[in-house]
Amino acid sequence: MEKESNKTSRRKFIKGSTILTAGLAATPLMSFANEASPIDTSDNIYLVGPQKGYSPQIGTLLSTMTLMRTWVIGTVKDLTVAQLDFQIDDQSNSIGAMLLHLAATERYYQLNTFDGIEWGKWDEDIKKEWDIASGLGKKGREIIKGNSIDYYLKTLEEVREVTKQEFAKRDDQWIMKSEPFFGRQPTNNYAKWFHVCEHESNHRGQMKFIIKRLPS
Amino acid sequence: MEKESNKTSRRKFIKGSTILTAGLAATPLMSFANEASPIDTSDNIYLVGPQKGYSPQIGTLLSTMTLMRTWVIGTVKDLTVAQLDFQIDDQSNSIGAMLLHLAATERYYQLNTFDGIEWGKWDEDIKKEWDIASGLGKKGREIIKGNSIDYYLKTLEEVREVTKQEFAKRDDQWIMKSEPFFGRQPTNNYAKWFHVCEHESNHRGQMKFIIKRLPS
Repeated sequence: MEKESNKTSRRKFIKGSTILTAGLAATPLMSFANEASPIDTSDNIYLVGPQKGYSPQIGTLLSTMTLMRTWVIGTVKDLTVAQLDFQIDDQSNSIGAMLLHLAATERYYQLNTFDGIEWGKWDEDIKKEWDIASGLGKKGREIIKGNSIDYYLKTLEEVREVTKQEFAKRDDQWIMKSEPFFGRQPTNNYAKWFHVCEHESNHRGQMKFIIKRLPS
Repeated sequence: MEKESNKTSRRKFIKGSTILTAGLAATPLMSFANEASPIDTSDNIYLVGPQKGYSPQIGTLLSTMTLMRTWVIGTVKDLTVAQLDFQIDDQSNSIGAMLLHLAATERYYQLNTFDGIEWGKWDEDIKKEWDIASGLGKKGREIIKGNSIDYYLKTLEEVREVTKQEFAKRDDQWIMKSEPFFGRQPTNNYAKWFHVCEHESNHRGQMKFIIKRLPS
């Protein structure tokens, strides 16, 4: 019911506003969508929604990423180096390696979505820095070890800062931009960044599985 | 730069439109937000964004849930009953139990957010139907077994249908409504439903871990 009456009001509103703003934008909704939002839920991580300094959809996406990251940090923040390095079996990834893997994934999505670089076509120095963490597996097991939780959290934080800076420069038209990606089907930037976010949950599920089975 | 010029345009737009719509709404953005969105990305699961028949934020949230669910289904759809029942160790949850757990979680969040029922204060018949899948653990291991993948996917689908029907009745003001919940801090409906979504990824991470280790 409430929705219906709003619908009527909106029709009147559009009718009036388009007259006054003729030539401004064919779709007033889209120009709204480019704006930093007047609503701001950033004072509380459990209020998902628009964030100060970001366009509405980007702010909302970022607030889910911040919430997800808070849950990841809560899961791992007290782990020792030995626990971060622990291998549950010979094909497993340590929690430490998975944390660096999350940072690598975010870095690669930055390059793909902010810099428009085709997936995997990174510069050699970027590959050198991130490919092992991105790929995990045998090489990850051999190389990613001996680091404290502070190292992993600092790395994640540094990468996230870049994401936030780049998000702040963009608008809701950017987040809807798509290219063939997942399954070679049109995939927008929102879907890519949603994946970066849910991917943290995917690995957090594995981290919790391992934590339950850490040697006492 | 582009953002700046939009900002100026928006000021002019607001200035004009508020004159014509005086008394309609103090915040035109909020009345927009109650509307079913004119943008529709529902023809492609990798285009996250507003969906036909839903308010913009709810549609966007739903599109992430649909994408996440597609990935879950892709992970489990070909598993046999024995694989769905497989226990990797004596404290593990089978993939089958985790799938029913996802349905139970969604059912409980429906009762909490759509019907306003305090967490855990469900009717006895609801508890009888869902508590074991919700709690997992020993009872889940004893009872949730012997079902085909069709059973789990059908149950998930039935519960999701209810979510979609209820989402369609609501607007973007509802999704921002909050109550003390996570960590007893104000938590809005978006955060609760984001959790329902990322929780599928959490368990999908564990499912993939188990699938890699299934007896051949």
